[in-house]
Amino acid sequence: MALFVHKYGGTSMGSTERIRNVAKRVAKWARAGHQMVVVPSAMSGETNRLLGLAKELAPSRASTAYHRELDMLAATGEQASSALLAIALQSEGQPAVSYTGWQVPIRTDSGYTKARIESIDDKRVRADLDAGKVVIITGFQGIDEGGHITTLGRGGSDTSAVAVAAAMKADECLIYTDVDGVYTTDPRVVPQARRLKTVSFEEMLEMASLGSKVLQIRSVEFAGKYKVPMRVLSSFTAWDIDINEEATSGTLITFEEDEKMEQAVVSGIAFNRDEAKISVLGVPDKPGIAYQILGPVADANIEVDVIIQNMSKDGRTDFSFTVNHNDYARTLDLLKEKVVPALNAQEVVGDTNICKVSIVGIGMRSHVGVASKMFRVLSEEGINIQMISTSEIKTSVVIDEKYLELAVRALHKAFDLDQPTA
Amino acid sequence: MALFVHKYGGTSMGSTERIRNVAKRVAKWARAGHQMVVVPSAMSGETNRLLGLAKELAPSRASTAYHRELDMLAATGEQASSALLAIALQSEGQPAVSYTGWQVPIRTDSGYTKARIESIDDKRVRADLDAGKVVIITGFQGIDEGGHITTLGRGGSDTSAVAVAAAMKADECLIYTDVDGVYTTDPRVVPQARRLKTVSFEEMLEMASLGSKVLQIRSVEFAGKYKVPMRVLSSFTAWDIDINEEATSGTLITFEEDEKMEQAVVSGIAFNRDEAKISVLGVPDKPGIAYQILGPVADANIEVDVIIQNMSKDGRTDFSFTVNHNDYARTLDLLKEKVVPALNAQEVVGDTNICKVSIVGIGMRSHVGVASKMFRVLSEEGINIQMISTSEIKTSVVIDEKYLELAVRALHKAFDLDQPTA
Repeated sequence: MALFVHKYGGTSMGSTERIRNVAKRVAKWARAGHQMVVVPSAMSGETNRLLGLAKELAPSRASTAYHRELDMLAATGEQASSALLAIALQSEGQPAVSYTGWQVPIRTDSGYTKARIESIDDKRVRADLDAGKVVIITGFQGIDEGGHITTLGRGGSDTSAVAVAAAMKADECLIYTDVDGVYTTDPRVVPQARRLKTVSFEEMLEMASLGSKVLQIRSVEFAGKYKVPMRVLSSFTAWDIDINEEATSGTLITFEEDEKMEQAVVSGIAFNRDEAKISVLGVPDKPGIAYQILGPVADANIEVDVIIQNMSKDGRTDFSFTVNHNDYARTLDLLKEKVVPALNAQEVVGDTNICKVSIVGIGMRSHVGVASKMFRVLSEEGINIQMISTSEIKTSVVIDEKYLELAVRALHKAFDLDQPTA
Repeated sequence: MALFVHKYGGTSMGSTERIRNVAKRVAKWARAGHQMVVVPSAMSGETNRLLGLAKELAPSRASTAYHRELDMLAATGEQASSALLAIALQSEGQPAVSYTGWQVPIRTDSGYTKARIESIDDKRVRADLDAGKVVIITGFQGIDEGGHITTLGRGGSDTSAVAVAAAMKADECLIYTDVDGVYTTDPRVVPQARRLKTVSFEEMLEMASLGSKVLQIRSVEFAGKYKVPMRVLSSFTAWDIDINEEATSGTLITFEEDEKMEQAVVSGIAFNRDEAKISVLGVPDKPGIAYQILGPVADANIEVDVIIQNMSKDGRTDFSFTVNHNDYARTLDLLKEKVVPALNAQEVVGDTNICKVSIVGIGMRSHVGVASKMFRVLSEEGINIQMISTSEIKTSVVIDEKYLELAVRALHKAFDLDQPTA
């Protein structure tokens, strides 16, 4: 007997028919003798519907009181889907009970709409499991010290599932979604892209933050912190496939580095089309320059990704960074208005026709020349590199957006990702 | 400064536009210096939508576990509408906070889908009121001893509002609905029907149970038990009408009998078309006969209204009662199959073309001849009375359904209800 946490996304819970399928799948696992905790998202569309109503009524200035009510509102989506799943399981003859975040309780801080989990009390859940029930826990939400409902932000159900799995020392946390795993890159760009049978937690972190939107990044951080084995797999396989086949499908996110004797150097190629580049040119090269430029940007709540400061020349330097497309115009205005005059910089220029391509691999740690191989491959394709940013297990380049597909395909091939691994 | 509880029904909360109107109305009361607690129902249609989803997934046999999940599910409707109302109030510049039943907490027994309120802790609510906030409390729901969500059954928001008003010793509980008060009878039957400015709690109880569906009967019982002044008024007046005009509109349900020097003998004419009559003829007249007939009916969960046992003749008697139309065929089958053979009764006959008409008035207590006046009026109209049932403040007759309008109009006129009272 093992203890498993299943998490089902909004699409998997999107209709009563789909909820019935989830129930049949979970009942199959329970019949196989496992203890089952299930964390469902709201039915697809429901969270947007609720927040749409709130938007129509929203005050002109947001406040903590407003965010508190948004959480009261949004939390109902998961409460409803959880109750429906419990009912569907009962219809399958499987005893089941659903709990909200506050009933478990899942304790969080008071950061409404983006709360963080602090602790989970599993006593109640464990008693029900021991009594033979499947326990359903609402994703996405908890309760703060003052007894207010909180939510973890969009996609927070992944984090709920991993947190519950960690608190209960579950054998594995299975994230059922509408894709069947993590791929070496986007199959729409590279038809030869392969599903990874395993991926390390650090690689997954880099891939998630670079745009492989399979998992919510916070859930992966959580899984890493508590060493929760986590599997991404499809909820659109037939519910009655062999349980052993199902239990080994998808992609397993691991924490044991030396599991494989021969680690692939590069595990995947990630990319992001949503960024824009901004450069502040001819900035006096003196201490505090990065803060003087990026401080106002951060104050405006604009997230910055790649940051590059070039070598200084004649006492002046160029400073470049990328932001999301949506923040591009606002960032440019801000710099022109506040930063350029204050710094006596020469000019601010920007470019929205860029993209970021990254190679990710835990093997890069112990292999030299991986980055330079990337640069060579791109050079051979005649692709000019505009910015470079590196970390221990990732190398990212910013290039002209029109070369995205070409670059990803060339790198996918050059790093042997087209071939199945042994 | 006074403390008021406002309750708004599902129709009043039916869209964001209507919720905004409720917010403007409540903000007006708060600006006038009153402490305000608001109990909203779910947006109209929402509870049916949720229970419809549950029905699609429901197990073939209902169980406590299933009813528990139904309450988890249905309670989300009021949680969402309460949060939306808090947001709308904030948009009006009025500080507001919403609480679910469990947050207050409103403690109930564990009778899922039809729980009864046991206690309300008003500490938290009072602190917010004292801090100048409008407090919104989800109607219809509470929490049981085990920490499970419970609901009070359809229409339970009225009961929630009255219970909160009782617990907080509110000056008045105002039930905003889609009618503007309690009438002497249905204006669709008698155009001269007048709105009552006041009605006694006992009269309201008799009228509610007799089919004046303005208020949930349990809320009136609750109001009577705790002497909560309760007003029924329309939420479809303009939100910005004069507050004093609004505060004296509708119908006030009172508990002080001697308030009016000259009490009207009859306050209203109630009627019900939904009943059917069943008679068991030629039953041996011996002890236990009523139980032997009605026991199996009660066991089948069929509600019985008027019950008449005739005088015995030659050792045999006739036994008649009314049930809801929907239960008619089932009751007949049950009697023919089980009761008639066991009792050696002669025959079971039934009639669905009947209706019940009642005169209700607290003044009947101290006035003789009220019932006989009713019988005379009906007789003058040539209407045959099939069954009679009386209580202290009500007399009901069962008559042929085709005479309903005639009977109601004649009684309305005969008891001087067509004329405005002084």
